Amino acid sequence: MMNDLFLRAIGGEAVDRPPVWIMRQAGRYLPDFMKLKAKYDFFTRCRTPELATEITVMPIDQIGTDAAILFSDILVLPQAMGLPFEMKPGTGPFLSNPVRSKSEVDRLIASDVEEELGYVMDAIRMTKAELNGRVPLIGFAGSPWTIFCYSVEGQGSKAFNIAKEFAFTNPIAAHLMLQKITESTIAYLRAQIKNGVDVVQVFDSWGGVLSPTDFETFSGQYIRQIVDAIKEEAPLIVFAKGCWHALSELSKSGASALGVDWTIRPEMARQLAGRDITLQGNFDPARLYSTPEVIQTMVSDMIDAFGKDRYVVNLGHGILPDIPVDHVRAFVGAVKSYSQKS
Amino acid sequence: MMNDLFLRAIGGEAVDRPPVWIMRQAGRYLPDFMKLKAKYDFFTRCRTPELATEITVMPIDQIGTDAAILFSDILVLPQAMGLPFEMKPGTGPFLSNPVRSKSEVDRLIASDVEEELGYVMDAIRMTKAELNGRVPLIGFAGSPWTIFCYSVEGQGSKAFNIAKEFAFTNPIAAHLMLQKITESTIAYLRAQIKNGVDVVQVFDSWGGVLSPTDFETFSGQYIRQIVDAIKEEAPLIVFAKGCWHALSELSKSGASALGVDWTIRPEMARQLAGRDITLQGNFDPARLYSTPEVIQTMVSDMIDAFGKDRYVVNLGHGILPDIPVDHVRAFVGAVKSYSQKS
Repeated sequence: MMNDLFLRAIGGEAVDRPPVWIMRQAGRYLPDFMKLKAKYDFFTRCRTPELATEITVMPIDQIGTDAAILFSDILVLPQAMGLPFEMKPGTGPFLSNPVRSKSEVDRLIASDVEEELGYVMDAIRMTKAELNGRVPLIGFAGSPWTIFCYSVEGQGSKAFNIAKEFAFTNPIAAHLMLQKITESTIAYLRAQIKNGVDVVQVFDSWGGVLSPTDFETFSGQYIRQIVDAIKEEAPLIVFAKGCWHALSELSKSGASALGVDWTIRPEMARQLAGRDITLQGNFDPARLYSTPEVIQTMVSDMIDAFGKDRYVVNLGHGILPDIPVDHVRAFVGAVKSYSQKS
Repeated sequence: MMNDLFLRAIGGEAVDRPPVWIMRQAGRYLPDFMKLKAKYDFFTRCRTPELATEITVMPIDQIGTDAAILFSDILVLPQAMGLPFEMKPGTGPFLSNPVRSKSEVDRLIASDVEEELGYVMDAIRMTKAELNGRVPLIGFAGSPWTIFCYSVEGQGSKAFNIAKEFAFTNPIAAHLMLQKITESTIAYLRAQIKNGVDVVQVFDSWGGVLSPTDFETFSGQYIRQIVDAIKEEAPLIVFAKGCWHALSELSKSGASALGVDWTIRPEMARQLAGRDITLQGNFDPARLYSTPEVIQTMVSDMIDAFGKDRYVVNLGHGILPDIPVDHVRAFVGAVKSYSQKS
């Protein structure tokens, strides 16, 4: 690996500067991505290995991040389980027959995900060849709770109250479904690792709608099953957005790193997670609207606050589509030019 | 005051059980409210003192909460400042010409809010007469940041990125606007108190989209101005949803109580806020979908965790419209039948 900074930071080694990558870095703020978006719909881009590879590698060439993350979507897994999610332009994921009963949970398929999601595996192998050892490749999956949220709600939501109602009023069916998703997710991540990803990240985008107690019941225990199954095979990052309250518990899970959103001070995140795990985050995505000069200062302060070791610079959530490319370059450049204050 | 439990808990007195009220208790889960909703649009209900009074008193008669909160909306204040917000059924607040420039900020009116919002003052006096000393009446306003969010975004949003972009890229105009809103809010709350409300609550519904540092810059300092101006005139509750990180700082503001959402354990909220302030919350609104038996147990555990003194039972956010009325009665009943575990 020519640039293994990300792997070393995830592994806890001392580094001269932290590595940097950006959630959704292969995305809509890049003009060349928009050209592909105009020609191919969302899941065509996911399902065509040549397109997924081109999009995945684009920010490495154009922005210079220290890791690539496969262009795909967390909803390809429930698609493989029999839930035909579409992506509606402008509104996001949509499932016309969401899961609302035990019998619908029973009908979820425990498919051979490596075969069913063969297009992901092809994209991983093709991307690895294209990257040719320049930077590591990150694979990913949604957390079981987050996949449950979309599958029951049927679409995006502010608070996922339909999903929560189902979980709270049909806990037996809900846990059966969460367990099925967990097992498929483990198989899916194992297949990604077998096909070449260097690190995997589990996105719990919607764990934050739950109370700390319900988070443990409906999300945390399933995330830990995944970490247990995967941790010997590849380093794993858990990003539970809005779940600062779980940082302490998740730090003991065996994960190599924890993602942190921007609603917590770095010092507090470090205090809750302890010193033996790598943290990743937590720049407010909307702060990339600021001028390059302000971004430079804020990034430097953020690294000082997290500390340069056991730390991966990232945003606290996905990059927004209308961020100017030169602001993204200022963000990455600030990390690369970082030197610790003495 | 026949039932002054709420005032005593807010004032820090020891009580036999904590008081209970519910954010949005005068709302859509009540069948009699739905009859009025079918006949009168949203702002007609706000602007007609007889309707606002009937709706405000309804949960006192039908549910038995220990405080009434005036039926109104935080957006009546920006309406009085010259921003003609409408309420679109099914989608929520809408402003066709949102504030996006310094010149639009300059045009905001510092109106005589007591006169301009005379219908609120009429509703307060009429409600006080109708309540006739049964329970205290809570008045309220949005926080300056939250009013800013709606006024710049022009509608509801998951993350208020347009409002954040304006704040981050036009900080001078943003602060000018926040200061104007702050001054109108102080005048508005003073008028509410003069006309009879016993306690006021400031809702920072969207402070949680900001990082801790940006919260202090764009929200916290303006909330503190309001607390400073009001605290000698009436007890004030600050509810900054999603802002657990600010509990410690806000506990020193002079507010009588702090609202807490459901994403923090009661013990942690108490630890951050200290023992000298009343806390209010924090039942997950979606947990009212659970059975009355589960609700009963969870409420009892919640009171044990917060402690019965310096505590007001409430949800962690507004009640959802499709909660069965008997579940709401179970919630209130659990508080009324609470006896501390020995």
